Amino acid sequence: MSPLIKTSTLRVLFSSRLPVLASSSNNKFRPFCYPYSVSHKAEPKKMAAERALPQIFQYVDQNVESYKNLLKEAVAIPSVSSDAKHRDDCVRMVEWMKEKLKEVGATTELRDIGFQTLEGKQVKLPPVLVGVLGNDTNKNTICIYGHLDVQPALKSDGWASEPFELVERDGKLFGRGSTDDKGPVLGWLHAINAYKNVGSELPVNLKFVFECMEESSSQGLDELLMEKLKPEGFFDTVDYVCISDNYWLGTTKPCITYGLRGISYYFLEIECAKMDLHSGVFGGTVHEAMSDLIYLMDKLVDKDGKILITDIYKSVAPLLETEKQLYNTIDFDPEAYRKSIDAYKLPHNAVKEQLLMHRWRYPSLSLHGIEGAHYQTGAKTVIPGKVVGKFSIRIVPNQEPEEVEKLVFDYINKKWAERGSPNKMSISAQSGRAWTEDPDHPHYQAAARATKLIYQTEPDMSREGGSIPVTITLQEASGKNVLLLPMGAGDDMAHSQNEKINVRNYIEGIKLFAAYLYEVGKLPK
Amino acid sequence: MSPLIKTSTLRVLFSSRLPVLASSSNNKFRPFCYPYSVSHKAEPKKMAAERALPQIFQYVDQNVESYKNLLKEAVAIPSVSSDAKHRDDCVRMVEWMKEKLKEVGATTELRDIGFQTLEGKQVKLPPVLVGVLGNDTNKNTICIYGHLDVQPALKSDGWASEPFELVERDGKLFGRGSTDDKGPVLGWLHAINAYKNVGSELPVNLKFVFECMEESSSQGLDELLMEKLKPEGFFDTVDYVCISDNYWLGTTKPCITYGLRGISYYFLEIECAKMDLHSGVFGGTVHEAMSDLIYLMDKLVDKDGKILITDIYKSVAPLLETEKQLYNTIDFDPEAYRKSIDAYKLPHNAVKEQLLMHRWRYPSLSLHGIEGAHYQTGAKTVIPGKVVGKFSIRIVPNQEPEEVEKLVFDYINKKWAERGSPNKMSISAQSGRAWTEDPDHPHYQAAARATKLIYQTEPDMSREGGSIPVTITLQEASGKNVLLLPMGAGDDMAHSQNEKINVRNYIEGIKLFAAYLYEVGKLPK
Repeated sequence: MSPLIKTSTLRVLFSSRLPVLASSSNNKFRPFCYPYSVSHKAEPKKMAAERALPQIFQYVDQNVESYKNLLKEAVAIPSVSSDAKHRDDCVRMVEWMKEKLKEVGATTELRDIGFQTLEGKQVKLPPVLVGVLGNDTNKNTICIYGHLDVQPALKSDGWASEPFELVERDGKLFGRGSTDDKGPVLGWLHAINAYKNVGSELPVNLKFVFECMEESSSQGLDELLMEKLKPEGFFDTVDYVCISDNYWLGTTKPCITYGLRGISYYFLEIECAKMDLHSGVFGGTVHEAMSDLIYLMDKLVDKDGKILITDIYKSVAPLLETEKQLYNTIDFDPEAYRKSIDAYKLPHNAVKEQLLMHRWRYPSLSLHGIEGAHYQTGAKTVIPGKVVGKFSIRIVPNQEPEEVEKLVFDYINKKWAERGSPNKMSISAQSGRAWTEDPDHPHYQAAARATKLIYQTEPDMSREGGSIPVTITLQEASGKNVLLLPMGAGDDMAHSQNEKINVRNYIEGIKLFAAYLYEVGKLPK
Repeated sequence: MSPLIKTSTLRVLFSSRLPVLASSSNNKFRPFCYPYSVSHKAEPKKMAAERALPQIFQYVDQNVESYKNLLKEAVAIPSVSSDAKHRDDCVRMVEWMKEKLKEVGATTELRDIGFQTLEGKQVKLPPVLVGVLGNDTNKNTICIYGHLDVQPALKSDGWASEPFELVERDGKLFGRGSTDDKGPVLGWLHAINAYKNVGSELPVNLKFVFECMEESSSQGLDELLMEKLKPEGFFDTVDYVCISDNYWLGTTKPCITYGLRGISYYFLEIECAKMDLHSGVFGGTVHEAMSDLIYLMDKLVDKDGKILITDIYKSVAPLLETEKQLYNTIDFDPEAYRKSIDAYKLPHNAVKEQLLMHRWRYPSLSLHGIEGAHYQTGAKTVIPGKVVGKFSIRIVPNQEPEEVEKLVFDYINKKWAERGSPNKMSISAQSGRAWTEDPDHPHYQAAARATKLIYQTEPDMSREGGSIPVTITLQEASGKNVLLLPMGAGDDMAHSQNEKINVRNYIEGIKLFAAYLYEVGKLPK
């Protein structure tokens, strides 16, 4: 079969099992449907994977509209995991994805992970979607993780269009979850579909873990992975783990990620009264919770971002000369970075290496906001009765969450004692460890070859400032090499207003995933 | 006519002009309709006002359900003036009240007051309802002010029932605006209606100014009062001004209010980036706006409520021995006050006189909240790009708003310079002066007699910590004595969750207003 063979010819070749074909011309306004939803039996003889890749790339290019439509469907489900009001949407999102995985031939299962306490109530967690595709003992097996939930988003936050309606502008697909993480999750689906659609069998076996609580500390997932799936033998056949839930460093050069910061997220609660009070009537006669909270929050970090918590830097891994060298070659332009966010001035004198180190290998502390206080526009004259300050520390090797939490608790308790307020204070935390891998591992080299094939350039081996706690759990559960393969660009604005994924990153990303499956398929079993 | 004559007899006496009678027995589930909506001509000879009062009180007692139903209708209109989404509701509320005033015989007018900038857009202000009822040159004329807008409220803020659905529990009517200020505004309407319904002419002429922007700094009202109504002669015939937009000091003893603190409300804006940022990706490489804002907000007030702004106490009126004596006799129980809000400990060693002074005659500073930051439940990992801290100072005699604003601006600029942040800071203010009157004025003595008649006790002559800037404008516009006549109790929780008005306060308040009109009617012209 020629690499230039047209999709239309393929359609004829496999017409017996392709009753509905996704194509850019006729599929624009109807729900996307994979051609594999009908039957997976009696497939004709497959072509070898290496011969299939060019076909796959062509097939992908011919199905761009279908891929956009499917992402539009996924974005339209507002699966905000932090908000109890959207819990049904989370469940709907998982069930939607289950159907899609079944359509490409996977066996699937929804795993119950129990309850959480949310807004004072016991709320059922959305199930985790677990899937298996292929069990050829001659092939390597990759475990793929992704998440189906998203951060909250309101148009009034400053979105140019409705956040849960995928809209294309200037080659970009705007919508909550477009890049974090619905686009990448669908990327795997499209890559598998492309293999099947050009008549080539998958070069690897696949296992899937798709959760819907990642943006809310992946509640319930660790227990499922360590106490259920691992003992059941789910990871016994897994050779590699791949996660696509991160971004390129910049906007043009691809990268592969071998390190992530962890996170230690704090809820600092102060209560001065059982209800909110009118500041005219009560102002001057209550010890206000807000001023106590603001006092404590002001003791956490200085204007240059230096964390003020006692001993917090003590266990940070020392910077070795070899690691230091790595930063010199990374493609990163501080001025472009500054301009991309319209910052007035960058810290660390805007020195490239320093900025990268402070994103990747040093901890940072951010003050996120206050729950329970006045937050709307206008001039509300309230004395809030109870407020919860939110802040988090991005933690790094070799900081252990328990150690960091203890330092923070001790520090806050000390500052609280110094304050001498009669109000009630409490603090709690949710944490996940930092993670690093060896970028010289064959798995990383395979991903690098796949990336070069698609983007015609060597990817940067990079780390990231964000946190994906499941990375470590998957490393522990499988005992295998874990790799982060980003689809989106560094300006995708995950968690922010106007989150987007470039059409180019989405489409080339599908090809990248297909090429990665091929490259891992070639690694010795 | 005997003071004990039954309403049913009155119905017969005036049946020719009472086609629809509001009564507690038959009016429970249909919209309230004043019997005066039909005709105001050819009324039979009126009885003297002093003979009418007992009839009026009886009539009021017999129409309790109707009064509740009308308040329910008013509360159901979510006239939140700070939120552009509710602007139509504000207009609807004003128009609704216009019809009610017309039904009791007033001539009414909706006065356009132009536009405001809200959430970045030009938004039309709700009109001000101006009314006139009676023009007998032998009678005194009272100008009555009230407001029809309310503070924001969501059930999820912690309301036990829907905030915009008036619900009765344990003799209390819960609902946003029930006590602030829809209940009192309707109280005037009911008092007028009662006079008419028992066949007694009003002992005074009335003028009305009902606005719908009070909870949003009464935007546009001062201009209307000073630049339109005053030059037009609206205030030429006004002898007294009465406002019912405040509360008793406690829950059992009535009071009349002769002083209010002013307010100086601040919007402190810091911007570090043009959008919100992901704390994992950007944390450590931006000067975060939140930490700058928290730093500045922490410099404003200490844990005991002492304001830290340089020279802020300098112009506060000195405490004279005569004023000091006044506080000794006021009925106020610090421990009951503490318990009512479940505070852990009160400041100023919980000394009664000190607490009262800090509510009434000393300034206080409250931190209300932050706009633009994370405020929801859950763990959002955002670095807000732009945040607006909200705080206000309740100002007192002899602090002038311009002077206070200058002190705050200078102080914030000084602290900002000390901070040395590269971010963008700006601060703006909205202010209104404090107000006091002479509690020995005949107008106050008339109101005291009316209060004693209803509640069988001498009212406290009190001041209040809250601010009603229009009080001063009305004082200036009319050049006459202004009096604050509270209807609600001190635990009504205006601006808070579960705002309520006691059924007793609402119903006896209607009688109080009727008696007040009678007492002012007796004052020499």
